[in-house]
Amino acid sequence: MDPHILPVELEKAYRLLNHGPTVLVSATHGGVADVMAAAWSCALDFMPPKITVVLDKATSTRALVERSGYFVIQVPNMAQIELTHAVGSMSLADVPDKLARCGVELFRVEGHETPLVAGCSGWLICKVVPEPHNQQTYDLFIGEVVSAWADCRVFRNGHWEFESAGPEWRSLHYIAGGTFYAIGDKVVVGKVS
Amino acid sequence: MDPHILPVELEKAYRLLNHGPTVLVSATHGGVADVMAAAWSCALDFMPPKITVVLDKATSTRALVERSGYFVIQVPNMAQIELTHAVGSMSLADVPDKLARCGVELFRVEGHETPLVAGCSGWLICKVVPEPHNQQTYDLFIGEVVSAWADCRVFRNGHWEFESAGPEWRSLHYIAGGTFYAIGDKVVVGKVS
Repeated sequence: MDPHILPVELEKAYRLLNHGPTVLVSATHGGVADVMAAAWSCALDFMPPKITVVLDKATSTRALVERSGYFVIQVPNMAQIELTHAVGSMSLADVPDKLARCGVELFRVEGHETPLVAGCSGWLICKVVPEPHNQQTYDLFIGEVVSAWADCRVFRNGHWEFESAGPEWRSLHYIAGGTFYAIGDKVVVGKVS
Repeated sequence: MDPHILPVELEKAYRLLNHGPTVLVSATHGGVADVMAAAWSCALDFMPPKITVVLDKATSTRALVERSGYFVIQVPNMAQIELTHAVGSMSLADVPDKLARCGVELFRVEGHETPLVAGCSGWLICKVVPEPHNQQTYDLFIGEVVSAWADCRVFRNGHWEFESAGPEWRSLHYIAGGTFYAIGDKVVVGKVS
């Protein structure tokens, strides 16, 4: 594994999502893996950390999540903006070699079958907390974060370090129609840094 | 009402939240109004637009939401960073004049009792979709957006216009310990603008 990828304490895992980035969702089952983009993912609890993510019934990734009971939420960065838009625009059902065409490289961490997307800034390995009513009615899935990781070049000691990392590490915040915003300047209340 | 505040088509209301800003939640019941900050709010559906927000049982705002069945999610901006941090750090239960001390000014739009916070960039007036299990187990509330508004100096024709508005209009993205990020540069896939 890339030596820059370090574990994140579960108590601080929520911070990877707290600023509302667009994420990638990966899942696998029966030898098939898929990755989709999701703007609608959010922290839900601190400890044990839980998150929500909206997975449309039309997505192939959702079927893999339902069958395996696991998914990974990862925080992509500016260097991956084309990849992020591509995995969000193409379906594995239509394009069997979607991941290769989108330039997605997968890796695994020990003890977990669900693959992670290489090149991201942070990763939350999640176990589905089964809530069939939410899943059916709202496409809303709850995951308990069982393991969290981050690239120490942009997140270390429990903090994002966007200001010292290069612009390619900024998180992505999708709006619509191919338009994203990158995260901007850090502001600490009472002082501007 | 401030003439800059214009209605947002419900079809495009999700765009006010899609980039993951920290929000303010306001509610009223029985002559009492409160406002809190929430980093954990997210779009849930396009049409009719629905959103989620996590409201801790310890907050006074939650009690007003439960009693009235309504709340407003509003998107604050850099000019309101102190206000946002203050309403998120103080409880109406301890500080009866919380809103005055935090510099919160409220206004109403016709047909809706729930007050809006003046000076924000966008407002989503929401009716609670009752889901007692989610509310009790996860502090997770679902709201259907019944009316949406934005300040045309930063959001118009269904689009954020951060790049032409001043830096005081940038949305806030909270991490922890008083640290926020402002939203940054717009990037359209395939071109940098």
